[in-house]
Amino acid sequence: MIYITRRERFSAAHRMFREDWSDEENLKVFGKCSNPNWHGHDYVLYVTVRGEISEEIGYYMNITTLKEIIKERIIDKADHKNLNLEVGFMQGRIATSENLAVAIWNELKPAIEKEGVFLHCIKIGETENNTIEYYG
Amino acid sequence: MIYITRRERFSAAHRMFREDWSDEENLKVFGKCSNPNWHGHDYVLYVTVRGEISEEIGYYMNITTLKEIIKERIIDKADHKNLNLEVGFMQGRIATSENLAVAIWNELKPAIEKEGVFLHCIKIGETENNTIEYYG
Amino acid sequence: MIYITRRERFSAAHRMFREDWSDEENLKVFGKCSNPNWHGHDYVLYVTVRGEISEEIGYYMNITTLKEIIKERIIDKADHKNLNLEVGFMQGRIATSENLAVAIWNELKPAIEKEGVFLHCIKIGETENNTIEYYG
Amino acid sequence: MIYITRRERFSAAHRMFREDWSDEENLKVFGKCSNPNWHGHDYVLYVTVRGEISEEIGYYMNITTLKEIIKERIIDKADHKNLNLEVGFMQGRIATSENLAVAIWNELKPAIEKEGVFLHCIKIGETENNTIEYYG
Amino acid sequence: MIYITRRERFSAAHRMFREDWSDEENLKVFGKCSNPNWHGHDYVLYVTVRGEISEEIGYYMNITTLKEIIKERIIDKADHKNLNLEVGFMQGRIATSENLAVAIWNELKPAIEKEGVFLHCIKIGETENNTIEYYG
Amino acid sequence: MIYITRRERFSAAHRMFREDWSDEENLKVFGKCSNPNWHGHDYVLYVTVRGEISEEIGYYMNITTLKEIIKERIIDKADHKNLNLEVGFMQGRIATSENLAVAIWNELKPAIEKEGVFLHCIKIGETENNTIEYYG
Repeated sequence: MIYITRRERFSAAHRMFREDWSDEENLKVFGKCSNPNWHGHDYVLYVTVRGEISEEIGYYMNITTLKEIIKERIIDKADHKNLNLEVGFMQGRIATSENLAVAIWNELKPAIEKEGVFLHCIKIGETENNTIEYYG
Repeated sequence: MIYITRRERFSAAHRMFREDWSDEENLKVFGKCSNPNWHGHDYVLYVTVRGEISEEIGYYMNITTLKEIIKERIIDKADHKNLNLEVGFMQGRIATSENLAVAIWNELKPAIEKEGVFLHCIKIGETENNTIEYYG
Repeated sequence: MIYITRRERFSAAHRMFREDWSDEENLKVFGKCSNPNWHGHDYVLYVTVRGEISEEIGYYMNITTLKEIIKERIIDKADHKNLNLEVGFMQGRIATSENLAVAIWNELKPAIEKEGVFLHCIKIGETENNTIEYYG
Repeated sequence: MIYITRRERFSAAHRMFREDWSDEENLKVFGKCSNPNWHGHDYVLYVTVRGEISEEIGYYMNITTLKEIIKERIIDKADHKNLNLEVGFMQGRIATSENLAVAIWNELKPAIEKEGVFLHCIKIGETENNTIEYYG
Repeated sequence: MIYITRRERFSAAHRMFREDWSDEENLKVFGKCSNPNWHGHDYVLYVTVRGEISEEIGYYMNITTLKEIIKERIIDKADHKNLNLEVGFMQGRIATSENLAVAIWNELKPAIEKEGVFLHCIKIGETENNTIEYYG
Repeated sequence: MIYITRRERFSAAHRMFREDWSDEENLKVFGKCSNPNWHGHDYVLYVTVRGEISEEIGYYMNITTLKEIIKERIIDKADHKNLNLEVGFMQGRIATSENLAVAIWNELKPAIEKEGVFLHCIKIGETENNTIEYYG
């Protein structure tokens, strides 16, 4: 088995909070990340797939295909957007990086499996010091 | 002369737009950066000062002092904030990185000169591909 | 399961050697890393924990809590210190990065488990070309 | 078990194509990577080995030994070379990064096992956005 | 004056040599970089322009415009190409990074000045350790 | 004029202090950097030279020559050493990065000028957040 990882980036605004809590409660749990006026990040997204090399062509998935799936399903929907207000696959979820990883997994899995390969890992770099990984 | 550069980071939401323009006009000039629902970045800030080494101590400015000036004057005001709505030194300016560099220069210059050194350059990394520099 | 990785850094002096060997024997086995006058590194420490997302808050461990545990148990004890002479958790161990990874694992495991999550991996970047990982 | 990763780099030309296909067929499958006049990359190679710490010396494999094995078996053969025309261990394989990872695995495995440790992973960074991993 | 730097990347094959010299003479002067079978790099290109902020829009050059000029004039011509055989603006020049910087300067200057801004610097990262700068 | 920058790295121990001051006085001025048991860094050294391209060979200084000068004059003397106790060119200077930049400048200037080129800048990265530049 060979693992391929594609790195993409998107810039978005977000806020961590629960609508059914007051601003004070949100501040107590989520700290400065609950700022009602939003803040934002340059999210770095790593998508890892796995498959077996085709002897005929020396690989199993064109990295351009992988790039286009990520672009269409994630980047076009999340880049320069507000994760809480505008990104469909984040609706009904608190806008944490943990939930973002799970949502991106769900969004990408069917499209990647249609190509005959497995989705292995979604990794999100929120800042250079904080990283989230999800393996399904 | 010796130049010292301190790197700091802050995460903020912003929107590039003019209040006196319609959303369509803003979209035409500022593109996706004018999204009314905001987006955000992990801004990387490089502050460069210059001075002459004191023979007694082998440097001219404690980097902790420089760090604290930047923290107090910039990071505490801009980190996890909305540049348009909440950051005092950006009021009355369109929230571009270019204007941000000039505003940070103005904010830091008096505090750094009070330490007896010169402010040389403000550099802002908006994303890993776009960088802005201002030398006063 | 979701994996969270926190990156921290500390600068320390060290020397790889055995007290019961002569300087020549140490030099033969440990090379320039056995320099009796010490040398040092900017160690990069990655701590990975794993747990299940709480539906109520969208994550399972506040990254600030993780940061504080690492700060209190590792950074405050090792930063700007001599690993051989001053760092309690390295006493009785040869000051290699391999032993450092194991010692940091032992130091962090109880504090992290008290938060109800699992310690998954300690990764140490000694230089940009050499990295050590330990999974317990 | 402790994992050690050594990072090395080499610069090489390559072309993805099948000799038994026309240039048009190659272009259709491999795109611009099939350019008959070659193109090239600064490949980043990560070799990960695993073993158990020797209590006597605090590690299990001198990283200089690992470095020399990689240099002799891979870097000296591939750096500033043409992967298709000059690199022995790539003959008979389409010059994809996937095949390169497998070929490097085969080339390094016996030499590393002779040192009494296990080869764990070959990772290749083709560009900063595309990475390949192979675990045997 | 504000300086804007845009980073772009392209992967190319090249060879440093003079046609009027023998392979031995080329090898003596250019070393392994003269390999007749080519080698390649992931070149990192930094283009820095300077201008004065327009008060109306808060910047002076849309970074998308800058990106498109670089794409059309440099990346589309050099990416996945052979610098010696296929890149028009390198014909008649030895394919060193120094000459590449000068050629890119000449290629970009008129297009950038047509936008009413100044070209300030062309920087090329050949590998992570070697960088070339040209200021005209 | 073309500027070439070569990046090298070395790992060293150091301590910032004055022998004629007590440990308390040193601690007050130099903080944790004055630790009597030393600490250390992975110093990143950037040496920038400038010259005019020779039309005959397409560059003006072989980067291997530059690399060897830096290796012989700096890296071999400072790597895996104690800057205070063992590095000749730092004797009589407080071991700050500022003084290190000046000392490296003095050490390299004659050797680089003997090659017929100019030394332009010594840049030292002490940590990823603190950088020092000296232009003579």
